[in-house]
Amino acid sequence: MNKVEPRTLSGFMELLPKDQLKFNKLYDAIRSTYEQFGFLPLDTPIIEASEVLLAKAGGETEKQIYQIQRGDSNLTLRFDLTVPLAKYVAKNYGELFFPFRRYQIGKVYRGERAQKGRYREFYQCDIDIIGDDKLSIINDAEIPYIIYNVFTNMGLKNFVIKINNRKLLNGFFSFLKVEDKSVDIMRIIDKIEKIGTANVIEELKTFDIDEEIINKIIAFINTRGTNNDIITSLESFDITNDLYQTGLEELKTVVDYAYAFGMSNDTLSIDLRISRGLDYYTGTVYETFLKDYRELGSICSGGRYDNLAEYYTDRKLPGVGISIGLTRLFDKLLELNLVEDEEIEVSDALIIPMTDNFKYIIECYNKLTSNNKRIQIFYDKRSVKSMINYAIKLNIPNVIFIGDEEVLNKTITIKNLDSYEQKTIKIENIDEEF
Amino acid sequence: MNKVEPRTLSGFMELLPKDQLKFNKLYDAIRSTYEQFGFLPLDTPIIEASEVLLAKAGGETEKQIYQIQRGDSNLTLRFDLTVPLAKYVAKNYGELFFPFRRYQIGKVYRGERAQKGRYREFYQCDIDIIGDDKLSIINDAEIPYIIYNVFTNMGLKNFVIKINNRKLLNGFFSFLKVEDKSVDIMRIIDKIEKIGTANVIEELKTFDIDEEIINKIIAFINTRGTNNDIITSLESFDITNDLYQTGLEELKTVVDYAYAFGMSNDTLSIDLRISRGLDYYTGTVYETFLKDYRELGSICSGGRYDNLAEYYTDRKLPGVGISIGLTRLFDKLLELNLVEDEEIEVSDALIIPMTDNFKYIIECYNKLTSNNKRIQIFYDKRSVKSMINYAIKLNIPNVIFIGDEEVLNKTITIKNLDSYEQKTIKIENIDEEF
Repeated sequence: MNKVEPRTLSGFMELLPKDQLKFNKLYDAIRSTYEQFGFLPLDTPIIEASEVLLAKAGGETEKQIYQIQRGDSNLTLRFDLTVPLAKYVAKNYGELFFPFRRYQIGKVYRGERAQKGRYREFYQCDIDIIGDDKLSIINDAEIPYIIYNVFTNMGLKNFVIKINNRKLLNGFFSFLKVEDKSVDIMRIIDKIEKIGTANVIEELKTFDIDEEIINKIIAFINTRGTNNDIITSLESFDITNDLYQTGLEELKTVVDYAYAFGMSNDTLSIDLRISRGLDYYTGTVYETFLKDYRELGSICSGGRYDNLAEYYTDRKLPGVGISIGLTRLFDKLLELNLVEDEEIEVSDALIIPMTDNFKYIIECYNKLTSNNKRIQIFYDKRSVKSMINYAIKLNIPNVIFIGDEEVLNKTITIKNLDSYEQKTIKIENIDEEF
Repeated sequence: MNKVEPRTLSGFMELLPKDQLKFNKLYDAIRSTYEQFGFLPLDTPIIEASEVLLAKAGGETEKQIYQIQRGDSNLTLRFDLTVPLAKYVAKNYGELFFPFRRYQIGKVYRGERAQKGRYREFYQCDIDIIGDDKLSIINDAEIPYIIYNVFTNMGLKNFVIKINNRKLLNGFFSFLKVEDKSVDIMRIIDKIEKIGTANVIEELKTFDIDEEIINKIIAFINTRGTNNDIITSLESFDITNDLYQTGLEELKTVVDYAYAFGMSNDTLSIDLRISRGLDYYTGTVYETFLKDYRELGSICSGGRYDNLAEYYTDRKLPGVGISIGLTRLFDKLLELNLVEDEEIEVSDALIIPMTDNFKYIIECYNKLTSNNKRIQIFYDKRSVKSMINYAIKLNIPNVIFIGDEEVLNKTITIKNLDSYEQKTIKIENIDEEF
């Protein structure tokens, strides 16, 4: 028979069991943290009608989507979890209770050019808090505390959540009378860490912005110091613009309450260069960095938006949310050796049969599992060495030998594969002795 | 702005939070049971190259697949989890340890005609045990015990796992000299419960099988009684055919060891009418039924196969596995009111602020959460009644009132929404009193 090469498409992650276990551990840490904070689960289809999914999209997004033509239906694979959320909330508005706190962890699809670290299928892990007409700013202060808990529970250390406010930036640009270019300015300064200050200045010049104004923008976004220092500076600038003052007030409030939740200058840091590229955000914005690996870019981003679902409903649904791109993050953490090394034990012991009396072996198995032990039996005839090797490779910490002597004496012989200690115990004493 | 109707495609399940919580509880029960039995997790892409996914497929499958044309690439959404497993094992053979016990829970896609209870996107929850060249028959005896544990952990009762052996059937057909028609015969008798004996006889006649032979087949598959009765009958039939005898020996062995694991005549039942439609299976076959709802059909099916990945590799990889179609099962269980009614509490308490002193509120929140309580704060200003209503709708069992008096006295007032009992406690005593 002609064989087909068993290949996996490039840009699609497919892990060996050892790594999949590690991936799942991070996945579970994210999920359980989201649940601990009272977020409700959501699971929307991966396929949606194109007209629904692309109600807003345009430009870059459209080029990257996966589309399916099926009969008369034009279908699209979801490219994020935010658009499906917007659809869901608009569709089920009457059945939901607001503020609607939902999490969704699922795969999304973008046909990006394949290159290392870029995935076409990847997990997003999102939370959003959606208000009905209004949503208190204190929600924005809880978000960094949730991010902090998520990454701590994932076993990560030495990360910092950067925070800024788009009203502050927009107000400042308005004060400088370049508000008509604010979308472009934010898109460009968003890249400052990647391309450097000199290149940002060059790019800004192409938008016909005065050099003096550019210098003011650069000086402004480079305001540094502790959170208190920065707020003091922002207050001292004497910028007479309402939007600026509203943004400043919001930023102060968010930082203030975030501190109350337990954040510090070390874990939460105002950074006026953070703007998020998307025009979607309207207030607080967040990015998260591993301090020792800034080159990874933001590992968790999000922000406040005025209106989630304007393409589907007239209702005003403001919200605040974040997203973790787990597939790419996992890939990087693995590469940098930052995933906790402690291996996951899938079973507590492997029974190695040295007799054909499987009735007795299964009797022991039942005794052990009823004592809450996770046990595997190696049913196939192989050398003892290769069975022990199976246990070692699967990180099963103990093997249990059962041979004719054990059958005769109603015992089992347990060997720990770390210490190589071995003991023979009566099966009636399993509860106490293993 | 023109609004797009926020609709979800038919044939795609999208649940309200209340039902999603119930779905996740079943999902988690399946996953944790699979893990308890030592199965390793696998997560393959939803999209694969068409040539890989369709290496074997033909006929009905091809018609139902979702295909994506992207540049030169012809891509297909997976329609089951078995073909991706075959690809994965062939691809990663050198890195896996056999027997390879893997579970995979994920969405699969079939463009079936939309009708009630039929889904185009649905979860399959699979386990398989793959051997390298050989795989002991005792694995086949562990499978019913795993099915039993899965459904018990899902909270289901009164189900039965039906078991049969295809060698037995094929051997019998060979003995009757109709082995060239055995695929068709099995496909037809597989439908006996659905279409009835008379229709099965009619269909068999169209394949030009003698009436006498048909009667023998019908009499054979209708052999009834306890497992022991059936085995005694099968032994007494005096069918001189090696395949039949091998199948009988396997069936006896599987039932015998399954009993050792703890199965009984009540939970495991030989049924000679079970054949599974697919020509894929070569030995033991399983189906699972809710005794009071036979009309649901099998809720968990599977069996033994000789060769998992013959389209990708020359290696012989025998295996045994089962699959649960969770989406359809959940739909039916919900409809029949068989999902445990006990609602899931997403949080332990909701803080209802009756003061603007959020610093104090957050202080109480921190105290409570550090005592492992899952707490939400209702930040937005709304009537107390509507905040209590939010707690009730989300099944949060307690509300905590914090007003100026509580701030002054460093207390919180907890009200249980079931008993309506209310008490005011010092925040320093939270650990003991809540």
